[in-house]
Amino acid sequence: MDEDVLYHLDLGTKTHNLPDMFGDTKFVCVGGSPNRMKAFAQFMHKELEHEGDDNNLKDICAGTDRYCMYKVGPVLSVSHGMGIPSISIMLHELIKLLHHAKCCDVTIIRIGTSGGLGEQRVLLLPGRGDADEKQLRKGVEPGCVVITDMAVDSFFKPQFEQVILDSVVTRSTELDQDLASELLECSRGIKDFPTLMGHTMCTYDFYEGQGRLDGALCSFTSEKKLEYLKRAYDAGVRNIEMESTVFAAMCRLCGLKAAVVCVTLVNRLEGDQIKASHDVLAEYQQRPQQLIAMLIKKHLGLINDKKLLDNAVV
Amino acid sequence: MDEDVLYHLDLGTKTHNLPDMFGDTKFVCVGGSPNRMKAFAQFMHKELEHEGDDNNLKDICAGTDRYCMYKVGPVLSVSHGMGIPSISIMLHELIKLLHHAKCCDVTIIRIGTSGGLGEQRVLLLPGRGDADEKQLRKGVEPGCVVITDMAVDSFFKPQFEQVILDSVVTRSTELDQDLASELLECSRGIKDFPTLMGHTMCTYDFYEGQGRLDGALCSFTSEKKLEYLKRAYDAGVRNIEMESTVFAAMCRLCGLKAAVVCVTLVNRLEGDQIKASHDVLAEYQQRPQQLIAMLIKKHLGLINDKKLLDNAVV
Repeated sequence: MDEDVLYHLDLGTKTHNLPDMFGDTKFVCVGGSPNRMKAFAQFMHKELEHEGDDNNLKDICAGTDRYCMYKVGPVLSVSHGMGIPSISIMLHELIKLLHHAKCCDVTIIRIGTSGGLGEQRVLLLPGRGDADEKQLRKGVEPGCVVITDMAVDSFFKPQFEQVILDSVVTRSTELDQDLASELLECSRGIKDFPTLMGHTMCTYDFYEGQGRLDGALCSFTSEKKLEYLKRAYDAGVRNIEMESTVFAAMCRLCGLKAAVVCVTLVNRLEGDQIKASHDVLAEYQQRPQQLIAMLIKKHLGLINDKKLLDNAVV
Repeated sequence: MDEDVLYHLDLGTKTHNLPDMFGDTKFVCVGGSPNRMKAFAQFMHKELEHEGDDNNLKDICAGTDRYCMYKVGPVLSVSHGMGIPSISIMLHELIKLLHHAKCCDVTIIRIGTSGGLGEQRVLLLPGRGDADEKQLRKGVEPGCVVITDMAVDSFFKPQFEQVILDSVVTRSTELDQDLASELLECSRGIKDFPTLMGHTMCTYDFYEGQGRLDGALCSFTSEKKLEYLKRAYDAGVRNIEMESTVFAAMCRLCGLKAAVVCVTLVNRLEGDQIKASHDVLAEYQQRPQQLIAMLIKKHLGLINDKKLLDNAVV
């Protein structure tokens, strides 16, 4: 191709010097909400101790309102909207961008929000007190951070069905296990930070597809819903969101090391509606950001394992 | 339910007086891009000759960045992001909003962008000159407006497969035929306004699902692509987008009169990339808005059929 127009990012190979703009990118963090991804960029600006006012960060995709994108040193923060189709458009164009920019060894992490499922397999962390342990035992309460070990579909299968022209191709949704383990390790370095690893179920729909009784359409009973969600739990699902399978499948095929880290906003075995206050939800949504910041700082040599370990036993 | 929190709209039955805010709504127009839906609200503000500065229109969903919403008299303008899951979340909450607000006789129209397909069945319009006719014969060129008579899936079937818990339910994607015909009629009242009626294909993906060769992943040849798109054309498909099937299915089940009007930005039989300039694309995107404005003004008695007819033969 003579020219590649990355239409939904408002970038292109002829209009922009992509290697100059993006060549040093090592971490890409993606999430649904544009405001949240801006907040993450501002947070990283502080964490990496970059100079200047973090309010002046420029949206690289300002020419379009489909997605937003911010860059802080080696960290790119990009929004992807809601649902598989929306994140898939962004990923196609982002992966082409990284290719055109000649980036290498890129790690990509989705930081999202999700519904949580039921009781938690208690992670006994060295050095935690009884109070912490009790809190962890409470299960996937709102605010708990889930690191995905496997992304599964509505039928609990670790696969993504991609329609190509008019045939259906099944793709693996395997994620990088080392990266997931490293993230879990990092989480132990943050105080009062309920975290667990589990399967993440990815659906095409927030209401009927996730068994919510409070949509405009609902054709099942509360019993049917609970039976389904408990089956999901028994299959290892700990949270539900709407992007992880296609994210895992595309990153895997394109050779990007990928992870999914989502905070839960509601315990779906107890309810459907998200009723926590704005402030509480805002605090929850910072948690995956904190964890990713710690991982990035560790990789950049700004924090060492010893310090992580010291924090863990405080 | 004691309270209904419309989470992604940042509205609720306890926090907002929905009948007061929305009770007089008669037309809801939805589209992917927030900027475009703001522009449509401003355009309607002028068209309906409302007083005050159209720059002061307030985003009713300002508390969230998931969607935006503007109200101009009986017209609601709402963004829905990209793809089936994203529009489906918005529709669930919008339909609940209309219900809580006790709205009746609501017409809902999606105004979107799309890829066009090939040659056009020439619509011989009374009173058009040779030049117009020649332009129409050129086929679904960028800028052409397609009114959907039927929304079909990737397999050219007029249905939407909704996953409910872990079973798949097939729903009809029939749209209101009278409304579609009325829109076609209205289009004849606008000069230099290439319009046609045809099937709209709705896919889960912009790249592989629509046969694009320029995504980050592509496993088929140019010949395979063209063979598929030509089969789509032969099945009656005239444009391709990513929301119409679930939009048609949900509106139908909830008793809303619904239509889909999309402008085409590229002729997919000639290419994959959208390369027109920003200004040209901006002008194209105004076309569905013009058409809907004319329909709304006609329904509100601000323009009559005689005037439409007079315009048509100019």
